[in-house]
Amino acid sequence: MPRIRDLNIYQSQLPTGPHNGITDVTGVAVGHFTLIAGDGAWSGNGPFRTGVTLILPHQGNLYEEKVVASVHTINGFGKVAGFEQVRELGNLETPIALTSTLNVPRVADALMTLAIEQNPHIGLGFAATGRQGYASVNPVVGETSDGFLSDMQARPIGLAEVRAALTDASTGPVAEGVVGAGAGTSCYGWKGGIGTASRVLPERVGSFTIGALVQSNFGRAEQLTIAGVPVGLHLQPPPSKRVEDGSIMIILATDAPLDVRQLGRLCHRAAFGLARTGSTCHGGSGDFVIAFSTANRVPDRPDKLVVQQSVVYEQQIMSLLSLAVIEAVEEAIYNSLLMAHTVVGRDGNTRYSLPVEEVVKVMRRFGR
Amino acid sequence: MPRIRDLNIYQSQLPTGPHNGITDVTGVAVGHFTLIAGDGAWSGNGPFRTGVTLILPHQGNLYEEKVVASVHTINGFGKVAGFEQVRELGNLETPIALTSTLNVPRVADALMTLAIEQNPHIGLGFAATGRQGYASVNPVVGETSDGFLSDMQARPIGLAEVRAALTDASTGPVAEGVVGAGAGTSCYGWKGGIGTASRVLPERVGSFTIGALVQSNFGRAEQLTIAGVPVGLHLQPPPSKRVEDGSIMIILATDAPLDVRQLGRLCHRAAFGLARTGSTCHGGSGDFVIAFSTANRVPDRPDKLVVQQSVVYEQQIMSLLSLAVIEAVEEAIYNSLLMAHTVVGRDGNTRYSLPVEEVVKVMRRFGR
Amino acid sequence: MPRIRDLNIYQSQLPTGPHNGITDVTGVAVGHFTLIAGDGAWSGNGPFRTGVTLILPHQGNLYEEKVVASVHTINGFGKVAGFEQVRELGNLETPIALTSTLNVPRVADALMTLAIEQNPHIGLGFAATGRQGYASVNPVVGETSDGFLSDMQARPIGLAEVRAALTDASTGPVAEGVVGAGAGTSCYGWKGGIGTASRVLPERVGSFTIGALVQSNFGRAEQLTIAGVPVGLHLQPPPSKRVEDGSIMIILATDAPLDVRQLGRLCHRAAFGLARTGSTCHGGSGDFVIAFSTANRVPDRPDKLVVQQSVVYEQQIMSLLSLAVIEAVEEAIYNSLLMAHTVVGRDGNTRYSLPVEEVVKVMRRFGR
Amino acid sequence: MPRIRDLNIYQSQLPTGPHNGITDVTGVAVGHFTLIAGDGAWSGNGPFRTGVTLILPHQGNLYEEKVVASVHTINGFGKVAGFEQVRELGNLETPIALTSTLNVPRVADALMTLAIEQNPHIGLGFAATGRQGYASVNPVVGETSDGFLSDMQARPIGLAEVRAALTDASTGPVAEGVVGAGAGTSCYGWKGGIGTASRVLPERVGSFTIGALVQSNFGRAEQLTIAGVPVGLHLQPPPSKRVEDGSIMIILATDAPLDVRQLGRLCHRAAFGLARTGSTCHGGSGDFVIAFSTANRVPDRPDKLVVQQSVVYEQQIMSLLSLAVIEAVEEAIYNSLLMAHTVVGRDGNTRYSLPVEEVVKVMRRFGR
Repeated sequence: MPRIRDLNIYQSQLPTGPHNGITDVTGVAVGHFTLIAGDGAWSGNGPFRTGVTLILPHQGNLYEEKVVASVHTINGFGKVAGFEQVRELGNLETPIALTSTLNVPRVADALMTLAIEQNPHIGLGFAATGRQGYASVNPVVGETSDGFLSDMQARPIGLAEVRAALTDASTGPVAEGVVGAGAGTSCYGWKGGIGTASRVLPERVGSFTIGALVQSNFGRAEQLTIAGVPVGLHLQPPPSKRVEDGSIMIILATDAPLDVRQLGRLCHRAAFGLARTGSTCHGGSGDFVIAFSTANRVPDRPDKLVVQQSVVYEQQIMSLLSLAVIEAVEEAIYNSLLMAHTVVGRDGNTRYSLPVEEVVKVMRRFGR
Repeated sequence: MPRIRDLNIYQSQLPTGPHNGITDVTGVAVGHFTLIAGDGAWSGNGPFRTGVTLILPHQGNLYEEKVVASVHTINGFGKVAGFEQVRELGNLETPIALTSTLNVPRVADALMTLAIEQNPHIGLGFAATGRQGYASVNPVVGETSDGFLSDMQARPIGLAEVRAALTDASTGPVAEGVVGAGAGTSCYGWKGGIGTASRVLPERVGSFTIGALVQSNFGRAEQLTIAGVPVGLHLQPPPSKRVEDGSIMIILATDAPLDVRQLGRLCHRAAFGLARTGSTCHGGSGDFVIAFSTANRVPDRPDKLVVQQSVVYEQQIMSLLSLAVIEAVEEAIYNSLLMAHTVVGRDGNTRYSLPVEEVVKVMRRFGR
Repeated sequence: MPRIRDLNIYQSQLPTGPHNGITDVTGVAVGHFTLIAGDGAWSGNGPFRTGVTLILPHQGNLYEEKVVASVHTINGFGKVAGFEQVRELGNLETPIALTSTLNVPRVADALMTLAIEQNPHIGLGFAATGRQGYASVNPVVGETSDGFLSDMQARPIGLAEVRAALTDASTGPVAEGVVGAGAGTSCYGWKGGIGTASRVLPERVGSFTIGALVQSNFGRAEQLTIAGVPVGLHLQPPPSKRVEDGSIMIILATDAPLDVRQLGRLCHRAAFGLARTGSTCHGGSGDFVIAFSTANRVPDRPDKLVVQQSVVYEQQIMSLLSLAVIEAVEEAIYNSLLMAHTVVGRDGNTRYSLPVEEVVKVMRRFGR
Repeated sequence: MPRIRDLNIYQSQLPTGPHNGITDVTGVAVGHFTLIAGDGAWSGNGPFRTGVTLILPHQGNLYEEKVVASVHTINGFGKVAGFEQVRELGNLETPIALTSTLNVPRVADALMTLAIEQNPHIGLGFAATGRQGYASVNPVVGETSDGFLSDMQARPIGLAEVRAALTDASTGPVAEGVVGAGAGTSCYGWKGGIGTASRVLPERVGSFTIGALVQSNFGRAEQLTIAGVPVGLHLQPPPSKRVEDGSIMIILATDAPLDVRQLGRLCHRAAFGLARTGSTCHGGSGDFVIAFSTANRVPDRPDKLVVQQSVVYEQQIMSLLSLAVIEAVEEAIYNSLLMAHTVVGRDGNTRYSLPVEEVVKVMRRFGR
C-alpha cells in the first residue's frame, strides 16, 4: 500500500526526514501489538480488531530520565490518562500508549507494572538509601473508540499485550494502517489507523526535526479533503450501519530543545493540520495532542539543583515550527488512511480501505 | 465588489441567514468608524488607514442587561482587553470593539466613558438606593496591527471615533472590506479587512443562527487557500516591502441559548475555519475568539436569585454547531478579502485588492 | 472519637446541615471499602492499609442521568482519572471514586465494569434501537498515596472491592477517619483519612447546602493549624522514618442549581479552606477538587433539545458560597484527623492518632 | 508606623531579605505616584485618593531585554491588561503598573508611550535595518477599586502621573501604605494599600530570594486574621457606609532562574498566603498574581537561536519556594495594613488606620 508521497498528489513546503515518520526524531521508537481475533457476531469476548501502540521518547529508563512534555485538548470527549501531572511537572516518565477507549485503565495499569519492574522502589520509597518519598508513576495513555469493528466491552489489552508492544518497539520505519491502536479505527468513513510523517527545518535554523504520529478515528465520508480537494464529495464508501464521529490522538516529537510553554504552542497548531484533512471537530470527539522534546532530559533524582541547558528563543522559528507541525499532522492522517487495508470486524461490520486509484483519479480531476 | 457567494466558486453545507452576516442573529448590530487621512511619508501624526468596529449584542443597555459570553485564545501574541473578567463571570457588558493594536487602551477608555454616560453610577455606587458596590465596567477590545499602512504610534482612535462607530451601528447588512478596524489590515499579502457570514441550523434542531465577523490581518501570499484550492501558489500580489505575519479577531454570535461552557466549545472550532483558508498560525499572531449568545440575558441587578432559563443539551447539535462556526469563519475571511479595495498607506506602502477575476480563473483551473 | 464540633474549640460563621457532612446534600451517598490486611514487613502482597471511597451524586443510574460538574487542579502532581471529559462536557456519569495512587487504573476499570453492568449498551451501541454511537463511559477517580503504611505496588483494590464500596453506600452520616480511601493516609504527621462537613446558606438566599468530603494526606507536623492556632508548633507526633508531603482530594457537592462555570468558581475556593489548616501546598502534592450539583440533571439520551432549567445569578450569593466552601473544607480536614485512630502498617510504620486532649490543651492556651 | 516585624507578634519560618521587600530581588525597583487632591463631595473631577505604582524587573530597557513571567487569576472579576500575551510568550516587556480600576486603559496607554519613547521603532518597524515586523508592545497593568475614597470615574492617572512614578522608582526600601496605587484602597474594613515582604532560601539551595508586593483592597472587618488570631472578631473599625468586598493584586519576583511553568506554580501558591490573612475570596474580587524572574533575560532581537541558560530542577526546592511565596504574600498584606494611615476621601468617606496598639493587645490575649 502506498503512502501519500508515493502517489504524486501531495506536496509539502518543508522536507521530510529520512523515514518521514516520528522516528526521524533521533531516539524515538514505536511499537505495536495488534489483536485480530474472532469472527462473526459479538460474543462478549470478541471478535477483536484492536491493539496498543507505544511511543518511546528514548531507549533508556524513562522514569529515571524523563523528557519535557506538554499536552493539549482540542475537544475533550475522551478518556486520556495522565494529563494533569504532565501539565504540572511538564514531563513524561512512561512511554505514551495509545489504545481503545475502554481499555485505557488496563493499559495504564500495565504501564505502571512495567515501570515498577524497571524501578522497583516505585510505591515503596528508597529504604536502602534513606531517601524521602514513595515514588509514584504517571502513565500517559490516549485512546479512540474501535467499537464498530471490535468488542470494546471486553477490554482485552492488558499487561501481556503492552509488554509485547514494548518488545516490538524500534526506531526506524513505523508500521502504519491496521496495526496496534489503529487496528479497529475508522476515518472519514473508511478504514483509518496509525499514520506518521515528519518535517525537517532548514539548516540555518538548526535542522530540527518534528515528527507526528496519529491514531485516526474521526470524520464523515463527505468531509474527506486531501490537499484541498474535496475527495469525500466524489468518493463514498459502501453504506455502513454507522456514521462514525470519532476522535484522534496526535503525538508530536521534536529534537528542538523546547520547554513546556513552547511545546504547548506546538500542540495548539495540531488542530490546523487536522482541519486541512476536512475535520469539522464534531461534538463527540476526543481530540488530544501530546508533544515532547528529546533534547533536555529531566532526571528523577537530579544531583544538581541548577544546570545549564539549551533554550530556544522560539519566535525566530515559531512560524516554521507551526508549518512543520501542521504539515506533519496532515500527512500522517493521509498515511493512516492510505496504509490501511479493509477490515471486517464484529457482526460483519466492515470498514473499507480508501481506494487509492479512485483517490488519484479525483485528485487529477481537480488539477493535482 | 463581490462577496464569495456571488462568484459561484464556493459552496457550503449549511444555508446562510438573510444577510449572510453576524447581524442575522436577531438584535446584533455592527458599526464602523473609518479613518483614512493623510498621504505620503510617516509624519508622527499620520497618515492613517485605521478605525474601529463595534459589535453590539443587542440594542439596549448592555451594562444593565449583559449577554452570556466566552473567550478563547488561539495564539496569544496580542493585546486584547477584558478577557479575564469574561472568563470569570461569563458575560459581556460593553459592545465588543475592534481596532488597531496600539489603540486598544484608548478604545477601552472610550468604552468606559460611554458606559458611564449610560450608567452614571459606575465607579460611584448607588448612593440613592443604598445598594452596595462601586460598579466597575469591563470593556472588551480586540485588535490587529495596521502598521504597514497606518501610523500606529499616534493612536488616533479615541472617544469621538468610538462614539461615531456607535452612531453608525445598525442591524441589517454589514459593511465589509476597508472599513472600521479593517481599514488598514492585510491578509495573505493582499488587502484584508472586515468580513462576515452566517449559517442557520435546520428547523428540526431549532433553526438557530450562528454569525461570524472577522478582522483579517494574517497569512502569507503563498498560503491563501480558497475552498481547498491553493490560490496563493498561483496568484501573487505585487512585491511588498513587508511579509506580513499578522493576526485575526473572530467574533461569533448566536441566538441559541448556550451557556459559557458551550460557547467555549464554539470558540475552539473557529481555528478550523481559519485553517481552511490556509493559515498556518504563525508565531507572531494574536488570534482571538469571542463568542456570545443573545438568548439568556444576565441582569446587572437581578431581582431574583434563581430564574428559569432555556438550556440546550448541546451534544445533539454540537457537530452541526461546529460545522456552522467553521463555515461561517471561513466564508467571513473570504469576504474580508474580496470586499476590500486597494489601499495606499503611509510611506507609499500599498496593499492590493485580491483580483477577483484572477481568483475565479485559478478556481476554475482546479475544477471549481 | 470526637469530631471538632464536639470539642468546643471551633466556631464557624455559617451553620451546618443535620449530619455536618456531604450527605446533607439530598441524595448524595458515600460508601467505603476498607482493606486492613497483613502485618509486619512488606511482602510484595501486603501488608495493606488501603481502600476505596465512593461518592454518589444520586441513587439512580448516573450514566442515564448525569450531574453537572467541574474539576480543578490546585497542584497537579497526581494521577486523577477522567478530568478532561468533565472539563469538556461538564458532567459526571459515574460515582467519584477515591483510592490509593497506584490503584487508580484498576478502580477506573472497575467503575467501567459497573457502568456496563447497569448500561449494557456501553461500548456496543444501541443495536436494538438503531441509535448511533458506541457509548463510552468516563470514570472519575482521585487518589492520594498511602505508601508509608500500605503496599502500594500490589494495587489490591479491584472490581470486588469497588463493588463492596458501592454496596456500602448510603445517605446519612458518613464514616470518617481510617476508612475507605483514608485507611492508609497521613496528615500533618498524624493519621489522616476521610473527613466531611457541610454548610447551609440562609433561607433568604435559598437555603442551599454545600457539602465537602476530603481524603487528607498532606502536610508536615509543624504546619498544623486549627482555627488559627499553630498546634503543630506545640504538639509533635513521635518521630517517623518519613516526612510526608502528600496530597488531598476535595469533593464538593451542592443542591444549588449551579452551572459548570459557577461550580468552577466553587472549586477555586477550596484552596482557601486547605490553607486555613496550615497547608503550604508543597511541591509533591496532588491537590484536586471536584464539584457537582445535584439540581439540574443531564440525561444521556435527552428527548428534547432545549429545556427550562433553574439558573442562579450567582453574584448575589457568591461570597456566601465561597465562605461555605472554605469552612466546609477546613472542617472536613479537622474531622479527618480527629476521627482517625492510630494505624500500624507495613514494616512497622506507624501513624499516630492526633491526641484530642493535647489539642484542646494547646487551643485553650491560645485563648480558644 | 511599624511594619509587622517591629511588633513582635509575627514569626516566619524563612528569613527575610535585607529590606524585607520585593526590592530584595536584585535589580527590582518600585516607584509610586500618589494623587491626594480635593476634599468634600464628589465633583466629577475629584476628590482623588488614588495613584499608580510601578514595579520594574530591572533598570535597563525592558522592551529590549524582557524577563520571563507568568500570570494567574484567582478570581477574575477585574480589568487587568496584558495577560494573554504573557501567557503565550512568557515574558514582560514593560514595567508592571498598578492603579485604580477604571484607570487601567489610561495607564496602559501611558506605558505604551513610555515604551515608544525608549524604542521609537515600536509600531513603525525597523526601516533603517530592513528588519521585518512592526513591533507592538504589551503593557501589563493591574488594578483594584478605590471608589469609596476617590473619584474613580474621572480617571486622573495618565502619562504625566505614570512618568512621575517611573522617575520615583528606586531599588532599596519600598514605601508602603497610603502610597501610589494604594492611596485609596481598603482592606478588612481598614485602610489598606501597598505592602511588601521577602524571603530568602537557605544557602544550600541557592540562597534565592522571593519578593512579594501587594495592592490590598479586600476583605470584611470580621475576617481579619493575623498569624492565626481572629483579630477581626475583636477589633472593628468605626461604622462605614460601605462593606467593601474588593480585590488584591499580588506581584512576585525572584532571582531563581525559573521558567514560565515554574513561575506559574509560584503564582498558584499566592492564594495560600492570602487565605492566611482571613480572605474568603468573595465573589466580587479581582485577585490576580503576576510572577517574574530576573535571572534569564529574553532579548527582543536575539542574535542567536539557541543559548545556554540556567534551568532549575524545581522539585528539590518547590516546597521551600511555596513556603517563601506564602509567607511573603501574608506578611506583605499585614504591612499594607499597618503602614497605612487614616484617609478621609470623597464625600467624607473615611478609612481608618488599623490601630497598632489594639492589634497587639488582641494578639497578646491569644497567646502571641
